[in-house]
Amino acid sequence: MERSPMTTLCYIERENQYLMLHRTVKKNDVNKDKWIGVGGHFEGNESPEECLLREVQEETGLLLESYRFRGIVTFLCDDYPIEYMCLYTADCPQGELKDCPEGKLEWVDKGKLEELELWEGDKIFFRLLAEDAPFFSLKVEYEKGILRGAVLDGRRIV
Amino acid sequence: MERSPMTTLCYIERENQYLMLHRTVKKNDVNKDKWIGVGGHFEGNESPEECLLREVQEETGLLLESYRFRGIVTFLCDDYPIEYMCLYTADCPQGELKDCPEGKLEWVDKGKLEELELWEGDKIFFRLLAEDAPFFSLKVEYEKGILRGAVLDGRRIV
Repeated sequence: MERSPMTTLCYIERENQYLMLHRTVKKNDVNKDKWIGVGGHFEGNESPEECLLREVQEETGLLLESYRFRGIVTFLCDDYPIEYMCLYTADCPQGELKDCPEGKLEWVDKGKLEELELWEGDKIFFRLLAEDAPFFSLKVEYEKGILRGAVLDGRRIV
Repeated sequence: MERSPMTTLCYIERENQYLMLHRTVKKNDVNKDKWIGVGGHFEGNESPEECLLREVQEETGLLLESYRFRGIVTFLCDDYPIEYMCLYTADCPQGELKDCPEGKLEWVDKGKLEELELWEGDKIFFRLLAEDAPFFSLKVEYEKGILRGAVLDGRRIV
């Protein structure tokens, strides 16, 4: 069975910070060396929330208690299979952060996100999250890591 | 390549009616003889909106001008492959309704929806649409057409 094109991507919040994951471990990782949220591919018959809770627990040891589904990102990059990323923000629950098998976890001030090596298009959704935008659908297309196009709710913006 | 698990499902509105499709044509159709909205599987690298516009045009001849992304329905039924249905409502645009290759299109009063042969779980999201609920994630599981479970935004309701 092919891997699901559905993924979750979660930005856990604490005060004015997001929990960011520096993806340094996996080989053939479309996100290699990028800083992103935690998450991963749907497994079995998971709903978006089931995948969210499992992935966050696997990668951080935390069990989410409150979260918000903020948007869907249709993600295209070179020859990687298409991904539909269910984007969440979540309040940081009690509990100890464990080491992540996929990279290094770090709390980062929201104002300093752009100093990190990010996907260019992630800056678009960070703005939408900061503006508390209603649920959105964003399509981004990359060639060799460069953002070649972005369409927000059906309107081209890049 | 396997068919995408992602689909769109759109309820086009006109005054107090939805445009309903009576699925009578396709063989091996999980929706055989049910009344549902228009829509279908994502193709190629489509975003949710691209699939929405294409499917609505193919099945109704109409070109949508305004629509709202209302929720995602994780749909499980017996041995059919899982579906993630991107649920939309849309204003009915100008233009002539054409015959649908997949069944009979009919305008139905919202108050009379429950007289149709519907998926039991569709009544859940019709209520959410009527209440103008914020974006939701609903998981429904069927066995031989009977609703065996429903989870709304992570909380079990059936």
